[in-house]
Amino acid sequence: MVCGMSQVLAERAYAEELDATDPLAGFRDRFALDDPSLVYLNGNSLGALPRATLRRLEAVLREEWGTALARSWDHWVDLPGRAGDLVGQLAGAAPGQVLVTDNTTVNLYKLACAALDARPGRHVIVTDQDNFPSDRYVVEGIAAQRHAELRMLHTDLDQGLDAGELRAAVDEDTALVSLSHVAYRSGALADMAAVTEIAHQAGALMLWDLCHSVGAVPVELDRCDVDLAVGCTYKYLNAGPGAPAFLYVSARLREVLRQPIWGWFSQRDQFAMGPRYDPAAGIAKFMTGTPSIPGTAAVEEGARLLLEAGLGRMRAKSLRLTSYLIGLGAVWLEPLGCALATPRDGSRRGGHVTYCHPRAEQIVELLAGANIVTDYRTPDRFRFGLSPLTTRFTDVWTAAAAARDIIGTEGGQSRG
Amino acid sequence: MVCGMSQVLAERAYAEELDATDPLAGFRDRFALDDPSLVYLNGNSLGALPRATLRRLEAVLREEWGTALARSWDHWVDLPGRAGDLVGQLAGAAPGQVLVTDNTTVNLYKLACAALDARPGRHVIVTDQDNFPSDRYVVEGIAAQRHAELRMLHTDLDQGLDAGELRAAVDEDTALVSLSHVAYRSGALADMAAVTEIAHQAGALMLWDLCHSVGAVPVELDRCDVDLAVGCTYKYLNAGPGAPAFLYVSARLREVLRQPIWGWFSQRDQFAMGPRYDPAAGIAKFMTGTPSIPGTAAVEEGARLLLEAGLGRMRAKSLRLTSYLIGLGAVWLEPLGCALATPRDGSRRGGHVTYCHPRAEQIVELLAGANIVTDYRTPDRFRFGLSPLTTRFTDVWTAAAAARDIIGTEGGQSRG
Repeated sequence: MVCGMSQVLAERAYAEELDATDPLAGFRDRFALDDPSLVYLNGNSLGALPRATLRRLEAVLREEWGTALARSWDHWVDLPGRAGDLVGQLAGAAPGQVLVTDNTTVNLYKLACAALDARPGRHVIVTDQDNFPSDRYVVEGIAAQRHAELRMLHTDLDQGLDAGELRAAVDEDTALVSLSHVAYRSGALADMAAVTEIAHQAGALMLWDLCHSVGAVPVELDRCDVDLAVGCTYKYLNAGPGAPAFLYVSARLREVLRQPIWGWFSQRDQFAMGPRYDPAAGIAKFMTGTPSIPGTAAVEEGARLLLEAGLGRMRAKSLRLTSYLIGLGAVWLEPLGCALATPRDGSRRGGHVTYCHPRAEQIVELLAGANIVTDYRTPDRFRFGLSPLTTRFTDVWTAAAAARDIIGTEGGQSRG
Repeated sequence: MVCGMSQVLAERAYAEELDATDPLAGFRDRFALDDPSLVYLNGNSLGALPRATLRRLEAVLREEWGTALARSWDHWVDLPGRAGDLVGQLAGAAPGQVLVTDNTTVNLYKLACAALDARPGRHVIVTDQDNFPSDRYVVEGIAAQRHAELRMLHTDLDQGLDAGELRAAVDEDTALVSLSHVAYRSGALADMAAVTEIAHQAGALMLWDLCHSVGAVPVELDRCDVDLAVGCTYKYLNAGPGAPAFLYVSARLREVLRQPIWGWFSQRDQFAMGPRYDPAAGIAKFMTGTPSIPGTAAVEEGARLLLEAGLGRMRAKSLRLTSYLIGLGAVWLEPLGCALATPRDGSRRGGHVTYCHPRAEQIVELLAGANIVTDYRTPDRFRFGLSPLTTRFTDVWTAAAAARDIIGTEGGQSRG
């Protein structure tokens, strides 16, 4: 039975059938992916260019900037909040709690400082040794400046957060728990509600990094009673290289918290240019200076595409894609010495699938030579990012077959 | 004599002659200013759109993002430093000291924190009550967090910094002096070398805001022995709304200073994603997270246009434009109750000219109704921004004549 299933699974015709019945298949044409030979499985690093974004940026540049010039600030000034509300729809946040601004690192810094200020007398920040570098470095810097203690979880790389370890790490001295919803290396998906509850039981604030989850998995910030979150928009939101990031501050905390970078865009009655800083009401308080207008417009377009596709269909396709790759990997890659580094349980993984192999870096290079773009992550991992709006099942088949051929030819099987 | 001169000056034919002999006149066609009836004198708020930038962004979007996708990071990763070196040429900074990144507010925050850390035991930050809001708010916030004292200069709004007042304000407890090179309201130009020297004599670090000067007046950061500087790129550098700002850290201090927002783009050997933060060598240490690639590319294009025009010709034209407007104002506006709020001495002013009038806000609105874009600044000022690459002398004539007619008609003369 298993053998027969595997044979069917391994046929390219099966991938073609999955594409033919994919309700989101039409979305691929909404992107400027014009190289027919390209297999792009790196949307978890940089998402593709939506055609609507090209049109929108053309209008922003030629009409709003080129023709209307500074007069456009009348409607640009609220754009970070409007784009934030759209991103909020993808992240389960009611309006008024999300802002598109700055980059993820700066947003992490602002919110982590705000959290520590809101928990005076507590001196511990808890994070995970496998958290994304900026997440770790930002709190390392804040801990150094404020003489706080950084407590690192030694989470298993492949299976994600261990609730027991976290429960043991938080206590009455914990100000902040900062973790990623989907782990950038393994793709493991954390249980947002359960982890947030553990932080809250200790009286700490919970800050989630959604970079690798928003646009790929359902996110329910309000329902999970999350305090703070950040995320980038250039991966599954397809807003382009270095597009502004977003931040979320729960309405429960919005008026209480204060961020450290006091700029004119977070000032109440900004154009009065008053003598003293007086933070704006609402989420605008978490802005700094002048936001990127083209970048924020691109976030709006990217978020709209995902909302049009629908969060349920997006997650369903994402799971089908990752399951399909894991199925092909069981037949083709694991026998050649590749170890799956992503949870097999679909409910515990995000939108990318990672394998460990000692020559991972070389495998990624050889795949790139065949016009198959994946990416390498230290120390021995290669990742397939399966962006639900742009990835075809035939892309997955092509990439898995190519990886099998590369590893088989190059002697990877010696570890099998 | 004066009367005769004034009559000649006030003729539109005189403006046409100035345009005909303007060596930079051809640069206006390099911008997408396609509305022939528009008189745009607000480039000191948002500069115009260069046609080269439209072409460059088309290539960045379609080819670098759309086609090459994440593979473009191979050359994108150094873009902030390359763009920084170009801006450095406009600001008198040798390579390796300028970075295009984040916005002005975030850069002010990073550099002001770094300066305070570099002057342990000193607790005073000196700034100017007429400094731009973000400049004041950022150091107000830092002072609040660090229990430092904010000492405000009460500089005369119109005549700029008073060296004597500054000398009296700095002492052995002063860590940082933070001032604007060109004042955003009056257009007064500070003596960068002399002011920096006063800060240094007290043992303080000097941070200049170049938002209203770079691209309009010569800036000589290295020659003036400046420590730190920031500036935006959407005014005279014409890089578009919310394009990334720049920062300068003198090579003398670059390896010593440490900025507070520790992100993966400021990490040595970034893609090793190592366990601990280890700041990169060189100016990259002052980055935070992922930079805006289209925005940074637009900064390169804007800087190149100014370098092609030449800093000497740029300043010469800027002075001719502001002198011409001040001359027209003496004939037309001052008799109607407008008070010049910009130094008459050309060597002491930047690229914009400001008048005070109690109905300044209404004047700006009425000018806008005639398709003449200027801007209002509290409490009673209207500004003419005379961007040297895009402003014609006939634009100045049209705007001054329209202001005269508006104020004369509306009863402004009652204050004459």
